[in-house]
Amino acid sequence: MTAVPYLALIASVLALLLAYYFAKVVLRADQGTDLMREIGAAIREGAMAFLRREYKWVSVFVAAMFVLLLIVPIDGRPAASFAYLMGAVLSSVAGFIGMHIATAANTRTANAAREGAAKALPLAFKGGAVMGFSVAGLALLGISINYLLWVKWLGVDQAFQVVAAFGLGASSIALFARIGGGIYTKAADVGGDLVGKVEAGIPEDDPRNPATIADAVGDNVGDVAGMGADLFESYAGSIVAPVVLASLLVPVFMEGDSLAADFGDAEALLMYPILIGALGMIASIVGALFVRGREGRSLSAQLHAGQYVAMALTVVFSIVGTLVLFRGSPTIGNYVLGAPIFLALTIIVGLLGGWAIGFTSEYFTSEHYRPVKGIAQQSETGPATVAIEGIAQGKLSTLPAVVLVVTMIGLSYWFGGVAFGATGDVIGLYGVALAAIGMLSVTGVIVAVDAYGPIADNAGGIAEMAELPPEVRGVTDSLDSLGNTTAAVAKGFAVGSAAVTALALFKSFSLTAGRSVPDGQASMLDSGGAIILNINDTAVTIGLFLGAMTPFIFAALTMSSVGRAAQAMIVEVRRQFAEIPGLREGEPGVKPDSRRCVDISTQAALREMLLPGGLAVVLPLVIGFIDVNALGGFLAGAVVTGFLIAIYMANSGGAWDNAKKYIEAGAHGGKGTDAHAAAVVGDTIGDPFKDTSGPAMNILIKVMTIVSLVFVPAFL
Amino acid sequence: MTAVPYLALIASVLALLLAYYFAKVVLRADQGTDLMREIGAAIREGAMAFLRREYKWVSVFVAAMFVLLLIVPIDGRPAASFAYLMGAVLSSVAGFIGMHIATAANTRTANAAREGAAKALPLAFKGGAVMGFSVAGLALLGISINYLLWVKWLGVDQAFQVVAAFGLGASSIALFARIGGGIYTKAADVGGDLVGKVEAGIPEDDPRNPATIADAVGDNVGDVAGMGADLFESYAGSIVAPVVLASLLVPVFMEGDSLAADFGDAEALLMYPILIGALGMIASIVGALFVRGREGRSLSAQLHAGQYVAMALTVVFSIVGTLVLFRGSPTIGNYVLGAPIFLALTIIVGLLGGWAIGFTSEYFTSEHYRPVKGIAQQSETGPATVAIEGIAQGKLSTLPAVVLVVTMIGLSYWFGGVAFGATGDVIGLYGVALAAIGMLSVTGVIVAVDAYGPIADNAGGIAEMAELPPEVRGVTDSLDSLGNTTAAVAKGFAVGSAAVTALALFKSFSLTAGRSVPDGQASMLDSGGAIILNINDTAVTIGLFLGAMTPFIFAALTMSSVGRAAQAMIVEVRRQFAEIPGLREGEPGVKPDSRRCVDISTQAALREMLLPGGLAVVLPLVIGFIDVNALGGFLAGAVVTGFLIAIYMANSGGAWDNAKKYIEAGAHGGKGTDAHAAAVVGDTIGDPFKDTSGPAMNILIKVMTIVSLVFVPAFL
Repeated sequence: MTAVPYLALIASVLALLLAYYFAKVVLRADQGTDLMREIGAAIREGAMAFLRREYKWVSVFVAAMFVLLLIVPIDGRPAASFAYLMGAVLSSVAGFIGMHIATAANTRTANAAREGAAKALPLAFKGGAVMGFSVAGLALLGISINYLLWVKWLGVDQAFQVVAAFGLGASSIALFARIGGGIYTKAADVGGDLVGKVEAGIPEDDPRNPATIADAVGDNVGDVAGMGADLFESYAGSIVAPVVLASLLVPVFMEGDSLAADFGDAEALLMYPILIGALGMIASIVGALFVRGREGRSLSAQLHAGQYVAMALTVVFSIVGTLVLFRGSPTIGNYVLGAPIFLALTIIVGLLGGWAIGFTSEYFTSEHYRPVKGIAQQSETGPATVAIEGIAQGKLSTLPAVVLVVTMIGLSYWFGGVAFGATGDVIGLYGVALAAIGMLSVTGVIVAVDAYGPIADNAGGIAEMAELPPEVRGVTDSLDSLGNTTAAVAKGFAVGSAAVTALALFKSFSLTAGRSVPDGQASMLDSGGAIILNINDTAVTIGLFLGAMTPFIFAALTMSSVGRAAQAMIVEVRRQFAEIPGLREGEPGVKPDSRRCVDISTQAALREMLLPGGLAVVLPLVIGFIDVNALGGFLAGAVVTGFLIAIYMANSGGAWDNAKKYIEAGAHGGKGTDAHAAAVVGDTIGDPFKDTSGPAMNILIKVMTIVSLVFVPAFL
Repeated sequence: MTAVPYLALIASVLALLLAYYFAKVVLRADQGTDLMREIGAAIREGAMAFLRREYKWVSVFVAAMFVLLLIVPIDGRPAASFAYLMGAVLSSVAGFIGMHIATAANTRTANAAREGAAKALPLAFKGGAVMGFSVAGLALLGISINYLLWVKWLGVDQAFQVVAAFGLGASSIALFARIGGGIYTKAADVGGDLVGKVEAGIPEDDPRNPATIADAVGDNVGDVAGMGADLFESYAGSIVAPVVLASLLVPVFMEGDSLAADFGDAEALLMYPILIGALGMIASIVGALFVRGREGRSLSAQLHAGQYVAMALTVVFSIVGTLVLFRGSPTIGNYVLGAPIFLALTIIVGLLGGWAIGFTSEYFTSEHYRPVKGIAQQSETGPATVAIEGIAQGKLSTLPAVVLVVTMIGLSYWFGGVAFGATGDVIGLYGVALAAIGMLSVTGVIVAVDAYGPIADNAGGIAEMAELPPEVRGVTDSLDSLGNTTAAVAKGFAVGSAAVTALALFKSFSLTAGRSVPDGQASMLDSGGAIILNINDTAVTIGLFLGAMTPFIFAALTMSSVGRAAQAMIVEVRRQFAEIPGLREGEPGVKPDSRRCVDISTQAALREMLLPGGLAVVLPLVIGFIDVNALGGFLAGAVVTGFLIAIYMANSGGAWDNAKKYIEAGAHGGKGTDAHAAAVVGDTIGDPFKDTSGPAMNILIKVMTIVSLVFVPAFL
């Protein structure tokens, strides 16, 4: 059993080695023509400059938080501050590595596309996989080291609260990376799209357009770095949550024994999420090696192969691993672990649940199904009906997602209880937390497939700007459109796991708060020792209203930010066309001042991320110091509406995007018709939906919950 | 004290007499030219035909519910069935009267507008006031009779559950009237707006357009009948909720005395909400008499005068009434009523809270403030940015609304406690329920001012169709734009009261459920005897997710319905232009087949209202029979998100509408520019937001709560 953290350490090192190997392969590939090199350098420079400036700003926040964690009477001081710092640093490093390779892979993919899709696909995938395995590898590395350091080697008090602080560090980076990246990418994209309307005759990705480079930078900043930091946090959170929850449930298992007592067999419960993380990692590595460019096989089948292999292996490994770890039906405290196989089932439920949510996202956003076709149909009567139908379909898509999530919660709760022969018991909560790690156990390969998308997208832009032959653009387009579908699955995993992880963190919050309740007031606690958050209590009701409101405000702020930044971009583009002679006419040698546009996006993104990012951290602190029950209601309201809005906005945005592509492929008259113009409006509305506000919800709900969990001892 | 229900009876009869008098005045006025009569007749005929068919369909539902209430083991059988029927019938009668007069007032207002605004304003107001005072009068009449009948004269068991069934009857009608009316009006309006785009050269309200009459009918069906049924239910609900809640709290007051015991002084608590209803009614009658057409005074001041007089008098009357009812600070059970003035303060908090929410709606939707100006500004870059900014501002507008509602809840809870010398006690809940009745005490005059809007709007359409001189249209436009502002205030009252009333009903649900808990399981109950709905309980969590999802699904279904119905309308209009020779050219004597369009809207509205309407009733029943705790979570989730979505959709829609009007008044280039076209798209997106999906939320959350309250004895 004590081998588990070391196994995780080995798995994470293997993941990092795979990332290193893939990075080598990518960097060895040819970058193509001089013009391609030049464009690639401009994109890389802009993206790295943004990342550096973002990290500079965020480091101020991280430093302040570091000090706050030292000062405020939370559990696990001062170790928590260092764990926090480790989470923040590792997440930043993963982002840096991933971004570095992604911006190298884009030109190389464009160049490989000149020899066909079979050459280009593996290169783009490997570029994404560097991000995927850096993220997952560094996260698992951090968790194993944290576990060994605080629990095993140093044996600090409240070691598990220290592990939670690691999660908070990862969240801090993810929060700002997601919001800042989301604003950046859409300011450039919306601004770029609208320039065509305002300055007639300048198509998207045209080298004359000064915003084109900023748009390509945005893809990397938002979809690579932002998404990577998000999934670092999700993955770390999904392991941290059940570990912390298990540590808090141990007294229940042991009936009254304090946490400081020898865990005995109960330690298996703490190890188990880490074991699953390690096994899923190995499965993902094997899966990633299955993605090769073979002539004659469909691209989609090749890309999906990696995911399916990883998922299937995870199922097998989980069953074996569970039976080995809990061999001989041990007694854990007062519970006899009668059926450990049910613990493996919660993992499988999570894995399948994540996949199923991804599939419903695909249903609502792919042009092969009714929702997108219906939106395209509405384009016949103009942009207003496109907007109405897109919003309606996005809202409707919350139905299957919620049904799947509550089914997952219900099943894993039940399985958790059955495993311990105690159906319906508080022990079931442990099962719920396991479902989240099950869902994210294959993070490496999922991020790989997701980060592949922006690389292919960038490659297309570079092909256009470098004036490569149209058939090259055709190849990159086929890679890109495949990326849209696989991204839907990745979003399903991200949002589903966010809900379940946040729930597990929420339970940990309630249990931690329960430990601070004075002995005489047992009526404030439920049978598991968590505080009772009674909806009929007025403070909880007020918290519920405020919490449910927060995702609405968050969406409003981020959407408005995109609008403002996009307008600044348009003004600048207009100015350049007016003031740079020969630019509009495309005279040879006349170049736009792309750097100014990159600067505008960078500054806007950094400035605009402060308010929403700050609110996410400050709101739970303010409410928590006033009333912890109100904070409980607040978190519940925020998790539930945040989840709904995340699904709704991601799917509306994706559906509009693909409705436009469906029309561009020839439906309803194709490009140039009024129907197409209407669909373009829908797509532009959807830009901040799917790439700024929607994805920010996942991280919002987890940041607020984990801040509350870490600070709850100080509130009471 | 026993005089209170009789006072309410007298106040309601006075209200009905005022409605009768106003109806006489309206009907005496001249209908204008023959063409105006003819158009008016067509509108009236269409509106009345819809209402008859709607009532026919709904009566099947009501009959089924009547039988269900007889069969299922709820409290208060069989009286509850009859109370239910009374609620449904009185609401229908109010709708019928209001619609009859509103469709008579429109032509007469158009005719009076030929002599100027000072003649037209009072006529339109009186038309709306007939609706307002029919609604409020019949609701208060029904409640007084129910109170006297079941509590005083017959003394049936569980008389207060019977009173709740009256509220359920009102809700049933409101549910279908709101949804059906909302779909009808926007199918016709969106269809009509888009016809201009599809069939170039046919402006809105043009007599050649076959959808014009359907559009005018829609204003009456949605904004008069739908809104009236909604406010009948809101008003009745706001009185029923505190009465039922007080009856359930009586055992707490009396410490263990059963409900069947002699109430003694506690009866004052049951009477108090009815007293406030009666006093507010008298204040509203006085206020309504203050609205006169005077030359030289601003129209807005004259219209607002009525509201302010009614509100000021309600404040004075409430203070006096409270001091008289609770004179000498009697002992109520174990509580000494130390400071009855604090009960009056909860009423005032509610009244001011409703007004303040209305004001924030006005801020977000009026062209005098930043949000609408910002949306208009975004029209410079096309419809997509208009849509993005409108959605962002609507979501942002939830901030002040939620802050006001939680402040209101917090204050009234505290005041309720202080009145009984027991701060923070369960008694505080009573205060929360009182805030809702405070908010709606002036319903009569609020509905009057709100129903005035569609009458003025209709008058404008008639002036256009009857080809009256442009200055007449100018007068009706000035009346109409004033109606938009006053409607914002009315919506604030409606949505604010929905949240607080639903909360009071929710507490009653929890208390009723608590009464069915076996004696041995006191740990399931809180100090007030309500069931504990612990968010950490997995069933409650699952309920919370499902409940929060329901308003999203509801919005999706109703928006899609509008889209489908609008497309059917467009197809029909196209067909008529193609098949009726001379129609497009406007040859004399050639008329469109308006009746077909009216039929399409009618059928679509009736067909499409069934699924969402049915869900609102069936969902809580299904969940309740599975698990009452899950139902508690479900209701909490639905109330909170329903409130947020109601605010968001109403304000986004209103803001888009006024941004368009702001541009039409000359900003950003005025009519005919690209900016104007972009704003028109925003307005069309906003149509189902503000008039279909948004307003349906208020009634959704109350129907689901009251169904749960009535059926909870059967669940357990």
